[in-house]
Amino acid sequence: MAKLVSPLAPAAFPTLLPIAGVRLASGAVGVRYSGRTDVFLAELAAGTTVAGVYTKSLTRSAPVDWCRDAQKGGTARAIVVNSGNSNAFTGKAGWASVERTATAAAALLGCKPSEVFIASTGVIGEPLPDHKITDGLPAIAQTLADDAWQAAAEAIMTTDTFPKAATATATIDGVAVRINGICKGSGMIAPDMATMLGFLFTDAAISADALQALLAPASDKSFNCITVDSDTSTSDTVVLCATGKAGNAAITDAADPRAESFRAALEAVCTDLAQQLARDGEGAQKFVTVDVDGAVSDASAKVVALAIANSPLVKTAIAGEDANWGRVVMAVGKAGQPADRDKLSIWFGGYSVAHEGQRVEGYDEAPINAHMQGKEVHLKVDLGLGSGTARVWTCDLTHGYIDINGSYRS
Amino acid sequence: MAKLVSPLAPAAFPTLLPIAGVRLASGAVGVRYSGRTDVFLAELAAGTTVAGVYTKSLTRSAPVDWCRDAQKGGTARAIVVNSGNSNAFTGKAGWASVERTATAAAALLGCKPSEVFIASTGVIGEPLPDHKITDGLPAIAQTLADDAWQAAAEAIMTTDTFPKAATATATIDGVAVRINGICKGSGMIAPDMATMLGFLFTDAAISADALQALLAPASDKSFNCITVDSDTSTSDTVVLCATGKAGNAAITDAADPRAESFRAALEAVCTDLAQQLARDGEGAQKFVTVDVDGAVSDASAKVVALAIANSPLVKTAIAGEDANWGRVVMAVGKAGQPADRDKLSIWFGGYSVAHEGQRVEGYDEAPINAHMQGKEVHLKVDLGLGSGTARVWTCDLTHGYIDINGSYRS
Repeated sequence: MAKLVSPLAPAAFPTLLPIAGVRLASGAVGVRYSGRTDVFLAELAAGTTVAGVYTKSLTRSAPVDWCRDAQKGGTARAIVVNSGNSNAFTGKAGWASVERTATAAAALLGCKPSEVFIASTGVIGEPLPDHKITDGLPAIAQTLADDAWQAAAEAIMTTDTFPKAATATATIDGVAVRINGICKGSGMIAPDMATMLGFLFTDAAISADALQALLAPASDKSFNCITVDSDTSTSDTVVLCATGKAGNAAITDAADPRAESFRAALEAVCTDLAQQLARDGEGAQKFVTVDVDGAVSDASAKVVALAIANSPLVKTAIAGEDANWGRVVMAVGKAGQPADRDKLSIWFGGYSVAHEGQRVEGYDEAPINAHMQGKEVHLKVDLGLGSGTARVWTCDLTHGYIDINGSYRS
Repeated sequence: MAKLVSPLAPAAFPTLLPIAGVRLASGAVGVRYSGRTDVFLAELAAGTTVAGVYTKSLTRSAPVDWCRDAQKGGTARAIVVNSGNSNAFTGKAGWASVERTATAAAALLGCKPSEVFIASTGVIGEPLPDHKITDGLPAIAQTLADDAWQAAAEAIMTTDTFPKAATATATIDGVAVRINGICKGSGMIAPDMATMLGFLFTDAAISADALQALLAPASDKSFNCITVDSDTSTSDTVVLCATGKAGNAAITDAADPRAESFRAALEAVCTDLAQQLARDGEGAQKFVTVDVDGAVSDASAKVVALAIANSPLVKTAIAGEDANWGRVVMAVGKAGQPADRDKLSIWFGGYSVAHEGQRVEGYDEAPINAHMQGKEVHLKVDLGLGSGTARVWTCDLTHGYIDINGSYRS
């Protein structure tokens, strides 16, 4: 299938400057794909701390189990990622593949296997030919460089139509620090988490515990607020590595006021990456923002927002550029959260379509239809019950999704 | 859009014999559609008892509210159904429409408005032109007949591609009784309930309370075991009317052993109708049965089965005739129910593909591919944890679904 780039893709890959203590490389070892790179290797300086958030799937992959263990050590010296095969549902053989890969990378870079983080993405249930990866690593390591961000983002792609990256800067005690991130994912996207791999790097000095306490809420507000198809991957992994090379006095508590600027920058990078995932949702033609206000709590608002964002009928209506707000009513009704039909109000693109349980008087569909014909669609619902709010992002459901997923393995 | 009949439709509309005390009629009043019937009227003999199950949606329609009230009286004398407009999210005007329709039907047939059951199906959120219905009812009532089952089933269709009916007989104390049912629905189908309207009639003598106690579990095992797209309608209604004309001594307690034959026949009719709904799922090309065994409870098994049946990735894989069992693993993992990756086993069409957490040795895809190319696909999962089981039915997710739902209102 020709890989057309999503019409919602950013105009260009962003410029990512080097992060002191981080070197990157990628290569083509033919795990599954031909004619493209499929392995990403990161080398991290001694003393790098690490945090991670992982899929909550009960059928999670061997690499996810490995990373959860490795994270307990608090330090990372390498990351090895392959695309094409997720090494999920592969039993003991899958675990052995991870062990061999980590051992090979550790020997190559001079660290412990438990300091090597592993991620795999692609088909579920097929044995991983890890020898291809371990055989290829020495040559790949020869090409480690501090500016190879785009090649890294490309090596981890599966059905993605464009490589994804984001960057931001912050200050800690007046010292400038940088955060760079790359990620992949475009289907099997839903909390918790999206079907995604994300790798974030900073030169800030932050302890592993504080890093974790910063990453988890940033991830909740970003990666856990997107959905493409309500399906949840067995492999979702976000890892944040802090090399400490920027020279700031280390932050050891996420509540430290000195962490505020970093917290905001991290959330910005995560949100940028998460939105790129929704913009590359399989078959996506429109990027959709769903706001829910007036819920009894923020958590309740998020459930309602995701019910709307996941509804196939809402998503196909958006694909058809039809402001079919009745389907939004339906989705609110099925969400299982407190709702009162006669207090419910709905806006499309800022235009009121329904107020307190019925269509607004003098309803004029013309400006709303114009909004629906754009690439960015905004839905807002006010439940009229309380002050809980949530915002989630998704895309429309199109023939492209069927094309991609009706023939993925073949 | 040309209405092609689902390839999964029954070969012919079944033969439904009359039910003493039930007369049916239908007509075309132009609520929304042209060139087809859109109103169904049933007249029920004095003394007819009634039971009903309704959508749990919190944004349910005015007709659903009406029926829930009417049901408290325990008797029914008429049913009026329109297609084309669901009279949902229509505020006070919607309630007034129902009142006017019930009042008109009651005057026509000589009963109380509270003995008239009303259902509406179609677009949500648009005012119902109920005057078209009330103006048309007198002429429609002139055509009441005891054999107009197919015309009735056709009048209530929306995106359905074929009319749906089922029949069965039972005995109570040696007296033969009959159950006839018609239903509609093909999108917005998911528990609780499916987007559906169902009207069941029997000549058995059964008290309203006993009838309700028989209908609710039969509905749970049938209509609440199908899903097309995980979306839940605001209008779902199943009504069961018992005229008592068969001459059996009345059943007043569902636990009465004399009710066993009736219970089985009712479940058979409901299951037949429910399967027809899945077979007419919007865009359906394949009818899918999902069995989950080995769960910690039946309820847990049903959640897992629905997670599989609702997964867009599983449904598109089936559309692509791809035995992509990795996506079944994914769906089990996201279901939020107890599961152990390393105890999970999966079958497609009776062929073992994965056993206790990994692909079976000597996996041969050829017979499985042959199964996937058929119109009836069977998935089975054993969670390996307990003795809980569930069976649900669904269909594949195809381009047809996008075609139908991306242009429904236009």
